[in-house]
This record gives sequence, C-alpha cells and structure tokens, in this order.
Amino acid sequence: MKPSIAILTIGNEILNGRIQDTNTRAIARLLVGHGLVAERAMTVADDLQAIREALLFLAARHRFVVVSGGLGPTGDDLTTAAAALAFGRPLQICPEALEMVRAFFRRLGREMTGRQEKQALLPQGAVILPNPQGSAPGFLITEQSCRFAFLPGVPQEMEEMIRLSVLPLIQDCFDGSCTYRYRSFTLLGLPESEAEALLERVDLPEHVGVALCVNFPLVEVGLSTTWKDGEAFLEDIAKRVRHVYGEHLVAEGEETLVERVARMLIDSGRTLSLAESCTGGWIAKLLTDIPGSSAFLERGAVAYANSAKRDWLNVSDDILAGTGAVSGECALAMARGVRLASGSDIALSVTGIAGPLGGSPQKPVGTVFIALVAEKVESVEQFLFPGNRDRVRWRTVCTALDRLLRHLAKGAA
Amino acid sequence: MKPSIAILTIGNEILNGRIQDTNTRAIARLLVGHGLVAERAMTVADDLQAIREALLFLAARHRFVVVSGGLGPTGDDLTTAAAALAFGRPLQICPEALEMVRAFFRRLGREMTGRQEKQALLPQGAVILPNPQGSAPGFLITEQSCRFAFLPGVPQEMEEMIRLSVLPLIQDCFDGSCTYRYRSFTLLGLPESEAEALLERVDLPEHVGVALCVNFPLVEVGLSTTWKDGEAFLEDIAKRVRHVYGEHLVAEGEETLVERVARMLIDSGRTLSLAESCTGGWIAKLLTDIPGSSAFLERGAVAYANSAKRDWLNVSDDILAGTGAVSGECALAMARGVRLASGSDIALSVTGIAGPLGGSPQKPVGTVFIALVAEKVESVEQFLFPGNRDRVRWRTVCTALDRLLRHLAKGAA
Repeated sequence: MKPSIAILTIGNEILNGRIQDTNTRAIARLLVGHGLVAERAMTVADDLQAIREALLFLAARHRFVVVSGGLGPTGDDLTTAAAALAFGRPLQICPEALEMVRAFFRRLGREMTGRQEKQALLPQGAVILPNPQGSAPGFLITEQSCRFAFLPGVPQEMEEMIRLSVLPLIQDCFDGSCTYRYRSFTLLGLPESEAEALLERVDLPEHVGVALCVNFPLVEVGLSTTWKDGEAFLEDIAKRVRHVYGEHLVAEGEETLVERVARMLIDSGRTLSLAESCTGGWIAKLLTDIPGSSAFLERGAVAYANSAKRDWLNVSDDILAGTGAVSGECALAMARGVRLASGSDIALSVTGIAGPLGGSPQKPVGTVFIALVAEKVESVEQFLFPGNRDRVRWRTVCTALDRLLRHLAKGAA
Repeated sequence: MKPSIAILTIGNEILNGRIQDTNTRAIARLLVGHGLVAERAMTVADDLQAIREALLFLAARHRFVVVSGGLGPTGDDLTTAAAALAFGRPLQICPEALEMVRAFFRRLGREMTGRQEKQALLPQGAVILPNPQGSAPGFLITEQSCRFAFLPGVPQEMEEMIRLSVLPLIQDCFDGSCTYRYRSFTLLGLPESEAEALLERVDLPEHVGVALCVNFPLVEVGLSTTWKDGEAFLEDIAKRVRHVYGEHLVAEGEETLVERVARMLIDSGRTLSLAESCTGGWIAKLLTDIPGSSAFLERGAVAYANSAKRDWLNVSDDILAGTGAVSGECALAMARGVRLASGSDIALSVTGIAGPLGGSPQKPVGTVFIALVAEKVESVEQFLFPGNRDRVRWRTVCTALDRLLRHLAKGAA
C-alpha cells in the first residue's frame, strides 16, 4: 500500500501567527527517520466545524493522519468533540483513559478537577494512546480505511507518544513500503541556481527527486528516492555530490553546520573560545545547544561595550579610539585576547554593525569582521552583508562557523 | 463579505521536516496586523498534481489564498505550472515579468540565463506582483470568485511583497470586514488549566474567543473578537485580565517577555551585564536580537570552564573547589563579579546542569541557580527544571528574564 500520510495541526494560535507551528516539522522528521514522508500538512482553528471538515477531507485522501492539538482540559480544546461529530461516534467516558488522567494527577500529588475529567471523554471505538508526560491521553480511530492518531499539542508529550505508539502503528500499516530515503547537502557561498547547475555534473538518475531550499547564506540541496536500497544508492551519489560542491559543502544529512563543527572539535580534542560583538552570544548559544559542548568550549565573551573588549579581551585603547571597535584590527585583537585569556587552541571573533542604527558611509550597516586565531594561524576577513539586523547577524553566525569548519578541516587533512 | 483567507505553502523540504515552515506564520502575522485572520493553512510537496489539487480545493472554499514557494528558476519550482494546469490557463512569456527578471540581473551585474527566463512564464491572465528583492516576480489570478496571490518562498522577498501588493488587495477585497482583533497575555508560573480557571473572574462576553497555548514555562492566553471597536473593547478587558493574573503576567500583545525586559531597561536608562553558564549565551543572544540593545547591555560572559568563572568573574577557588560551579554561592559570585567588572547597574547570572550528562544524586540534571545583583539587592534562587537539555535551558532563560523583569518592575513602581 502506498504510504499516504497527512499531518493535521489544530490551534488558533498558529493561524493568527502568535506561535510557530513546530509540531508539523517534528512529526515530519520522525516519519522521515522511519522511511516515510508526509504528503500534506494542514492547520485549522479551534473550531468544531473547521476541524470536522478537515478530518473528513483527509479521511477521503489519506491512509494515516497524525493529528495534534486540542485534546487538553480547556474550553478551546475541541478536537475530540469534532472527531465524534465527523465520524458519528458518540462521546463517552473511557474508564481506561479516566484512570490514566487520575494516575497522572496522583503522581503530581494534585487534586483532579472536573475540568480534567473531560480528557477521558472519547469517541466510541477509540483506542487509547498513552501519554507518559502529560494529562491528556491520545487515541486512535479507524474510519473509511484511514487511521487517525489524535495527540496533544504540547511538543514533548506529542513526540514521545509518536515514538512510543504511533510509529509502530504506521510501520505496521505500511509494512514493506517505508522506503523513502532522503539526503541533504548544506552549501555556503553558492547561489541557488548555481547549486542546481552544478548538480547536472552528478548525472542523477530519473527516480531521484531534487529540492532546493534557501536560508541565506545557506542553500540546501535535498535528494530523495523511494527505490529499494535507497540508502546505499544515495551514499554512492553523495560521493559525487561532495566532489562537485567541494568546500562549499558545509554539512550533510541530518547534521547541521554547527553540529559538524562541534563534532570536529570533539573528535580532534581541540578547544575553542569565542569573542562576539554584533552576534551577541548567538554562536555560543548554538554551540552550547549541543550535548557535550563543555568538552571543547572554554568560554565566550559577549563584548558589547568597549570596556569589555579592553578588560576581558585586552584590545588596546589605540585600536578602540583609532580604527574603532568595528575593524579588522579589533577583530584580530579580540580573538588573540580571548585565546590568551582562556588558553584555548582556537579563538573565533566577530565584530560588526548589525543595524538598524550605527552605520556610516565608511562602515555601512552590514559591515562585519571575522577573525580566527590558532597556533601559527591568524586570519581576519571583512564582509558587507545585506539585509536587516536579523539577517546580518545570521549571515555572520554562518560565515564564522564556516571559517571555523575550514580551519578544522585543514587540521584533519 | 466574510474574509475567508487561506495560506498555502509549497515545498518538499517542509514536508520531510528538513526546514521549519516560517512563511505561514509570517503571513498570518501580517494578516492579523491588518484585522484579518487565516481560516486554514496547508502545505503540499513540489508535485504538480498535489499543488493542482490543493489550489482547486482552496478555490472552492476561500475568497483569498496566499501561496508561497515554487516560483524560482530551478526544476523543482512547479507552482506556476500547477496553477496553469489547475485553472486551464496556458503558460506564456509575460513581457512585463521578463523585463523585471532582466532588470534584476542588470542591477546585480550578472548575466541572465535561460533558466532564469522561466520565471517570466506565467499563466494567461496573471497580474504581476513586483518582487523588489529577488528575481522571481509574483502574480495574481482570480478564479471561481477566489483570488490567489502567488509569491516566492524566500521569506524576506515574500514578506516585502505582501506589504507592498498583497495586503492592499486583500483589504480592498474585504473592505470594511477587517475587524479581527487579538490580544495575547503571556504568563509564567501558572499551569494552563489554572490560567483558564482564573479567566472566569474576568467575566468575558460571548463574542470573545479564548485560546490557550503552552510553551513551558510560558502559557499564552489569547483573546479575540471580530466586533466593531474591538480594539477599545479588548483594551478594556485587558485591564481586568492584568488584575487577575498579577505578577504572573510577563508580557502582553505583540511584545514578548524579552522585548518587554529590553524596553524597561531602555526606558529606565539602567545597564545590564550577564554571566551565563548552562544557557551558554542564549539570554545575551535574545537581548541582542533587539535593535538598540547596545544602550543597556554592557557585556556578557559565557563562562563554561571554571577558569573563565575565576578570571573574568572573580569566583573564588574556594567556591569552585568547595560547593562547586553549580551552586547558589557560585551564581551569586558570578553576578557580583560581572557587575564589578562591567560597572553595570544590574547583573544577572545562571549556572546549572542542562544534561544529558553531569548530573549527580545531590545535583540532578535540571538543577539551576539564578542570581541577580544590583544596588542593595542580592538574590539567588535554586530550581529543578524537568525535561531534556533544550527544555532545561529554555526554562532557565525564561525564568531568568522573569526575575529581571520583577526587579525592573519594582524599580519602576
């Protein structure tokens, strides 16, 4: 059976833009990790009729639908009632679910209220999906040859329930057809159309799908196939892709640029220190997202005021009063200073004008200097990045990580 | 006419989870800013038939659809062809669009390739929507009493085109019905069900919609109405909401917690320094996201290694070797140290064990200390946050910002 899967997320807060819907992506990633890819994603508001219509639409077109949101105790949680309505199944208290909700509150040492009891009111014929982390149980309904897994919207609860109950059900449903394989290649320093043009040299077979996606300055090339042995096949193609993109290729597969840099630091046993001005700690934040980063990260300075550059990084008053805090001299001094202070193997520094204010004709908004200092290595580069504050900072972060990657790759060679 | 609006995003990279679809949220926010709210959002793959089916489905149910993605020059950009197919309009080179693409490459000083020319091939009857920042023009098609605005998927290009061309068209379309008003209240330290229970004291009228949304430790309460004079009406309700939630209310409306903290720092003229261990620069990153943050942020230390806590923050060896780097004494010493070094009015510090490794029976993963030091103020608190590394770090960031907010609010009173 063709694995036709859809994702439905429910919530006013998504449609009015108040929050970012991260659940669709989390579900999609879990599916891809198991050889499956969603065909469609939909979001509707906390509205009985809107949810009902979406459920019926998806039931007629897909074989499995993962639904998240609207199972909680509050008045805007309407998904269960909408499922009952859509499929003509009366709501009834499910004793098994009620015991789960009760047990949850017992563990918390809190009293269960009538409001909470609503979470055990399920459509007739629903099969419970346990929620180890939260109060709202999920449930499974089969309707019109389509299975619906209803899950709460709280991301961590939902993800655990997918791993625990939903993925085994989907794999059972599409036994032997979970053959979607995907490999992505993250590039820096190539426009999208050049990235595609270069791909012609790889000579891809017909059955390989190509998707390009831009998050300046990163361009991501995705190759997919549903052929059997797709994994080995894509690995073979990957060799040619690496050759074609050369040092523009900054990450591959599940790994991101920052994860690759962290891995190379951990593997090589080298230590790092950071001195950030315009990026304000963003590089440090990304590196410390990664478990085990304490093995390589010695310290970082968010050196916003000149006094911080002077005291902590030993940048001279001559530089600060002369060429100024946004200069190649200052970037280099910052990297030297943080390396000396920390005793780290490598030091990376950035200074620049992210805007919107602070630009001048000589140093317009987007002017950025990036320096790297290590044993017998001192480099500093100047950039002029386009875009608003957020874009200038993001380009700075990516470019600085790229320079660190190139340095580490040289050492590894 | 009821403003029935849908959002359609197109891209394999969204459905296979490789990227986060941020366009739906960006479009939704722009709509809400103009009194409109989307009823539905959908995502389909770069697939001719899937896009065609989605366009026809939405044409039958909505009056305006904002489509993003798939207009570029590469082979996986199929949206234009799918629109031609769906609405039976042959593709033809549009001279006006061709001139726009040409002009774009002239400005860049680059040669236009045949590949690029594809971007001027539009369905018959399409009206051009200029793209000032990129090569792919957008276009408008009216079909079955529904208007479709097709835009490129690159976020910055798309957003500018919405402001420039699409919002005026939508407002024209729904003249006088752009009355959706929304007000959100961000809470810290209240579970979702208690947040809803407290809302009963506000005595909301029937026409006010309530939506609750959880991003632990933050809970967001959203109130919406489409009544005329909704703005004044929600402002009136907001007074009662503020009273009911008291100091649990950490942000309101468009403003986030971090934006509120930044505004209060700027308004009060007070300066801040940071000393972060387990959050690794995340607090500094968020504060420096905000334009004008250089007015209050003196510096921040990402003090991962003990040597950084000793050299930069003057934490004594007694503390580091005695109670250890994860302790109330250390948090307090870090805050004192960074305040002394920077001369800032306020210093905030965090130290903790984010995991997955590093925990012990005495100090399990999730143990966090947060300290704040200012003139005549020294406070330190211990927390035990649940969840994985990312959740522990996020709870630490939010709680630290909340403590800073409370301190600033006291000063303002």
